[in-house]
Amino acid sequence: MFGNGTNTLYQSGPQARFFPPSESVMLLPGTYKNKVAFITGGGTGLGKAMTTTLSSLGAECVIASTLVISKTADEISQQTGNKVHAVQCNVRDPASVEAAVNQLVNDVGLPDVVINNAAGNFISPSEKLSPNAWRTITDIVCAAFLAITTIYAESGSVFVAPSAAAKAGVETLCTSMAAEWGRYGTRFNIIQPGPIKTKGAFSRLDPTGTFEKLMLETIAVGRLGTPAEIANLAAYLCSDYASWVSGAIIRMDGGEYVSLAGEFNGLKKVTQKQWAIMEAMIRNTKGS
Amino acid sequence: MFGNGTNTLYQSGPQARFFPPSESVMLLPGTYKNKVAFITGGGTGLGKAMTTTLSSLGAECVIASTLVISKTADEISQQTGNKVHAVQCNVRDPASVEAAVNQLVNDVGLPDVVINNAAGNFISPSEKLSPNAWRTITDIVCAAFLAITTIYAESGSVFVAPSAAAKAGVETLCTSMAAEWGRYGTRFNIIQPGPIKTKGAFSRLDPTGTFEKLMLETIAVGRLGTPAEIANLAAYLCSDYASWVSGAIIRMDGGEYVSLAGEFNGLKKVTQKQWAIMEAMIRNTKGS
Amino acid sequence: MFGNGTNTLYQSGPQARFFPPSESVMLLPGTYKNKVAFITGGGTGLGKAMTTTLSSLGAECVIASTLVISKTADEISQQTGNKVHAVQCNVRDPASVEAAVNQLVNDVGLPDVVINNAAGNFISPSEKLSPNAWRTITDIVCAAFLAITTIYAESGSVFVAPSAAAKAGVETLCTSMAAEWGRYGTRFNIIQPGPIKTKGAFSRLDPTGTFEKLMLETIAVGRLGTPAEIANLAAYLCSDYASWVSGAIIRMDGGEYVSLAGEFNGLKKVTQKQWAIMEAMIRNTKGS
Amino acid sequence: MFGNGTNTLYQSGPQARFFPPSESVMLLPGTYKNKVAFITGGGTGLGKAMTTTLSSLGAECVIASTLVISKTADEISQQTGNKVHAVQCNVRDPASVEAAVNQLVNDVGLPDVVINNAAGNFISPSEKLSPNAWRTITDIVCAAFLAITTIYAESGSVFVAPSAAAKAGVETLCTSMAAEWGRYGTRFNIIQPGPIKTKGAFSRLDPTGTFEKLMLETIAVGRLGTPAEIANLAAYLCSDYASWVSGAIIRMDGGEYVSLAGEFNGLKKVTQKQWAIMEAMIRNTKGS
Ligand SMILES: NC(=O)c1ccc[n+]([C@@H]2O[C@H](COP(=O)([O-])OP(=O)(O)OC[C@H]3O[C@@H](n4cnc5c(N)ncnc54)[C@H](OP(=O)(O)O)[C@@H]3O)[C@@H](O)[C@H]2O)c1
Ligand SMILES: NC(=O)c1ccc[n+]([C@@H]2O[C@H](COP(=O)([O-])OP(=O)(O)OC[C@H]3O[C@@H](n4cnc5c(N)ncnc54)[C@H](OP(=O)(O)O)[C@@H]3O)[C@@H](O)[C@H]2O)c1
Ligand SMILES: NC(=O)c1ccc[n+]([C@@H]2O[C@H](COP(=O)([O-])OP(=O)(O)OC[C@H]3O[C@@H](n4cnc5c(N)ncnc54)[C@H](OP(=O)(O)O)[C@@H]3O)[C@@H](O)[C@H]2O)c1
Ligand SMILES: NC(=O)c1ccc[n+]([C@@H]2O[C@H](COP(=O)([O-])OP(=O)(O)OC[C@H]3O[C@@H](n4cnc5c(N)ncnc54)[C@H](OP(=O)(O)O)[C@@H]3O)[C@@H](O)[C@H]2O)c1
Repeated sequence: MFGNGTNTLYQSGPQARFFPPSESVMLLPGTYKNKVAFITGGGTGLGKAMTTTLSSLGAECVIASTLVISKTADEISQQTGNKVHAVQCNVRDPASVEAAVNQLVNDVGLPDVVINNAAGNFISPSEKLSPNAWRTITDIVCAAFLAITTIYAESGSVFVAPSAAAKAGVETLCTSMAAEWGRYGTRFNIIQPGPIKTKGAFSRLDPTGTFEKLMLETIAVGRLGTPAEIANLAAYLCSDYASWVSGAIIRMDGGEYVSLAGEFNGLKKVTQKQWAIMEAMIRNTKGS
Repeated sequence: MFGNGTNTLYQSGPQARFFPPSESVMLLPGTYKNKVAFITGGGTGLGKAMTTTLSSLGAECVIASTLVISKTADEISQQTGNKVHAVQCNVRDPASVEAAVNQLVNDVGLPDVVINNAAGNFISPSEKLSPNAWRTITDIVCAAFLAITTIYAESGSVFVAPSAAAKAGVETLCTSMAAEWGRYGTRFNIIQPGPIKTKGAFSRLDPTGTFEKLMLETIAVGRLGTPAEIANLAAYLCSDYASWVSGAIIRMDGGEYVSLAGEFNGLKKVTQKQWAIMEAMIRNTKGS
Repeated sequence: MFGNGTNTLYQSGPQARFFPPSESVMLLPGTYKNKVAFITGGGTGLGKAMTTTLSSLGAECVIASTLVISKTADEISQQTGNKVHAVQCNVRDPASVEAAVNQLVNDVGLPDVVINNAAGNFISPSEKLSPNAWRTITDIVCAAFLAITTIYAESGSVFVAPSAAAKAGVETLCTSMAAEWGRYGTRFNIIQPGPIKTKGAFSRLDPTGTFEKLMLETIAVGRLGTPAEIANLAAYLCSDYASWVSGAIIRMDGGEYVSLAGEFNGLKKVTQKQWAIMEAMIRNTKGS
Repeated sequence: MFGNGTNTLYQSGPQARFFPPSESVMLLPGTYKNKVAFITGGGTGLGKAMTTTLSSLGAECVIASTLVISKTADEISQQTGNKVHAVQCNVRDPASVEAAVNQLVNDVGLPDVVINNAAGNFISPSEKLSPNAWRTITDIVCAAFLAITTIYAESGSVFVAPSAAAKAGVETLCTSMAAEWGRYGTRFNIIQPGPIKTKGAFSRLDPTGTFEKLMLETIAVGRLGTPAEIANLAAYLCSDYASWVSGAIIRMDGGEYVSLAGEFNGLKKVTQKQWAIMEAMIRNTKGS
């Protein structure tokens, strides 16, 4: 069992009512017709939401996970009416990625969309894949790659140094590849999500709920995000509507990052009365 | 008539065929029903494309320009079947912005979407608007603001220092406001377009076409962008599907920026044969 | 007299004792012999500290301010043994800048170092200076320019939007000029200071001291900076030792920015005992 | 034998004469008295230059390398008059780092300065070091850490994706640690060098010299950097003069990055005559 035991989207302030999440699919039906999409970590959380959205837009999806997740694949397929395949694969193990990619190619052909969403992401393959594997992967032309990193990938953050470093590596890998592989018909983009209440993220990062409360106070729109919101953005970025988007790093975080980073954010707690006193004092200051 | 006399989208390499622009509207019909949108510089180029897209999705649009542009407004309206109003306004002149905003509010009510697209952008109002004007503007709650800047706003660039500085100011203004005004129901986002062949941009920046050729070589996807592509991204960002996007800076440039910024980009011209020679030399190097 | 009535450098935690400020000049004596330096806002705070340092290293300094500050100039000169001139100048007024630059050139010749430190900075001149003024300024070759901005120039921040936007503009102006004017022998660099207790900054931004307390908690090294520390960095950046530094943006803030921006920074307050509980819960989580 | 066979510092344009490198040590003698410094890759190139500078300022240095480099250590020691130790260590192998650190602590005590300069940098240890090793390392309090990355760590670049990703990881690791470990008296900073002609960098990255020519054209100050220039900056950053610098990322690249990244940089080749033609055309453009 997960979370606060409910589906309530907790919010910090009244402004959250101005920003209700839109949970339905935004793109025109059929946008992904005849497209094959490969989503790592596609069986849970954000990955499952993205798979469901792409699938409902017509894509044939392949989801990868360390576990056997055919049941999830079937469930999504039933909901959307399009085929969803499941492959077992550990993205930290180059041989396993290689095998999964081979199976994928045999079963459904080369993917048009690759979403690198598994928690570990896969940074290793680029350096450790066998020449053979690279060849298979580099055959994947005309594909749109998308990596899911995090808002602290650029700035870094206390307590998550290894994950921050790995995600930063993924980002620079993607921007490098965006510059290098445009000529093969490939695009690479990145979504940096702020906090979204998936079981995976919150049970591990915030078992007591302490952190959720803290975060809500620094999210400008006053609420957490939802998997469906990430899924709509991802569906746009991997679609042909975004064929001129490559090397982009897109923050989707309800304005959390800009609120955190701004030096004077702490002053949000200053009351109207305190502001009045401060203003009077400032006006009375003379000289430098 | 403008440009190279044709509608051909020039391209630098064969890869551009992998990335054809999708010119149609991507969001579900009616996405902007009952919404009012205010677009500065909405009568030409990117502004006109964004207006047309929002209008065709159901919005009632108001376009502002230094010229009288009712004809353009009518033209768009005829195409989309929804009302489009035109107001005259110089965004560099606070009094003029104030008057336009007042007229807007009288005619159609407070806007739900404000797109700050006019070439000069409007950075001045925040400092110079009369208290009255600020009050009107700060009444605009629940609105989604979008500013159009440019990919060189962060890095700076030779030969465009004043525009780079102004656009950088707009970006930081927006991220600051995103952090500050979430509590009023307001979101602020930014699109940084790469080169898109509008008459405004190209006749002034590239009268001879020299620059276009240079740019095509550094755009990863091998072609310029189109106004319709910006319009789809803008329509997404200002819609409720993006209600959890605030303070985001989104580059849409065909991978130009990452290609420019990468130190080794110049080596793209190295031939296969030259790579072979270099590899042999590197292998023969001993010691540090 | 200023501040909390003492010269004590307040600190948030015991770690500040590991990071005592070094108040003496670090560069070799004579580093600035035969150099002329122009420092806006050089009569107080950071500007005065930078002037004193450059002067003590041998520079002939000219300080500019809206007020008549010959007394300050004399005071610094007496301390260092080198000439210090004062000119009156309002950096927001292009004509005033023009007149000051002319006087400067007449009195001491073209400057080798220009430090753009006045609180308003000068962003306007680039656009509004008369052709004549530009000519004078562009004659300033071989100079090292340094601008003092702030750590929130890039991220933006609540409550200081106009200043954040202006400083962002200054930064992009400088990086643009660094790229453009290398060929005239000119370098442009930027220091982004974190909070330093000058009367100018603190009496206006933090009249009640509330903010100082808050900041100390988010500064990694646990204390505010000192003007002498900025002065040493500035002296390095404008010296020939840094002749290969151009277009650089250097944060000097005791680690404040990285502490603010990191998403999990709030968790610093979690106690050892709470960590233990959280760890146990995380270990017990099964599945995604 | 290395490079162009001479010590000439090649330059692209006449402006390089305005920016002669200052090869001497800039800080006051004795700045590093009673300090212990550990420099990975300290036997060659930039590492050797930094070691020599710290040593001449009074530090007791320990240099680490995969090879036995006591000869280099002795050579530096003879030049500076201070002890220099050499340890063998492979920074890609956590056990080897652990052993080296233990030897270091036994021989000279805990270091005050750690410079992470070896080409591979060490990103792995944070995740793979044994609990024991971490304990040793986390005992290193009051130390100043410095990592040498590269200007393409943030932007990414074609042809160097793995190295770009690794260096990006190092940067985010450092900024994360800067936020987290200030409370242990530790600072973390980063230098991003542009191209500096060391045998290590150039024999591997530019065996034919093709790249050097290209780079010179995009370096604003018109020349490559020198190891001594990096050494002076490193000496400053690790000294007590910089005790308020933490989490900073400092580009030292002769203005290369800002020149590369700026969209209009390519226009630098436009001649005066071509500008005149363009200006006339722009003036003749009417309407948007
Ligand atoms: N939720 C948030 O607030 C948030 C914020 C920022 C970024 N993110 C990122 O978003 C992505 C998805 O996270 P989530 O919140 O949806 O959590 P999640 O449900 O735990 O998703 C992680 C998925 O990755 C799979 N996975 C983990 N290790 C793998 C491996 N070695 N090989 C293959 N698959 C692996 C997991 O499946 P198995 O366990 O079956 O292998 C799981 O389906 C992650 O990259 C996360 O870092 C999330
Ligand atoms: N096209 C590109 O490659 C490109 C790339 C990056 C960024 N951008 C940005 O995209 C935006 C739109 O550019 P565009 O390419 O579409 O060029 P454009 O057609 O010239 O658009 C500029 C619009 O702004 C209006 N405008 C200019 N000054 C104004 C003022 N003071 N007050 C009110 N309206 C004013 C113009 O109308 P009037 O002349 O009738 O006033 C015109 O409609 C601009 O901000 C531009 O910087 C464009
Ligand atoms: N202290 C901090 O914590 C901090 C942090 C980040 C950035 N900064 C920046 O550092 C710089 C120096 O600040 P400070 O703390 O030293 O404060 P300060 O003592 O108030 O310095 C500002 C100086 O600028 C001069 N000045 C202001 N407006 C001017 C104008 N229009 N024309 C000419 N001179 C003008 C002032 O002199 P007159 O009043 O005589 O004209 C004064 O000498 C500023 O740019 C500030 O934004 C400071
Ligand atoms: N020169 C440039 O233009 C430039 C530009 C940007 C960044 N950088 C960075 O600056 C740093 C120094 O480069 P450099 O130009 O001075 O080249 P270098 O002379 O090749 O320096 C690299 C040093 O690292 C040592 N090293 C390599 N792998 C190691 C390992 N696994 N364990 C321990 N030591 C190892 C090497 O010694 P052994 O071979 O004896 O092990 C050598 O002393 C590098 O991080 C480089 O990426 C250089």
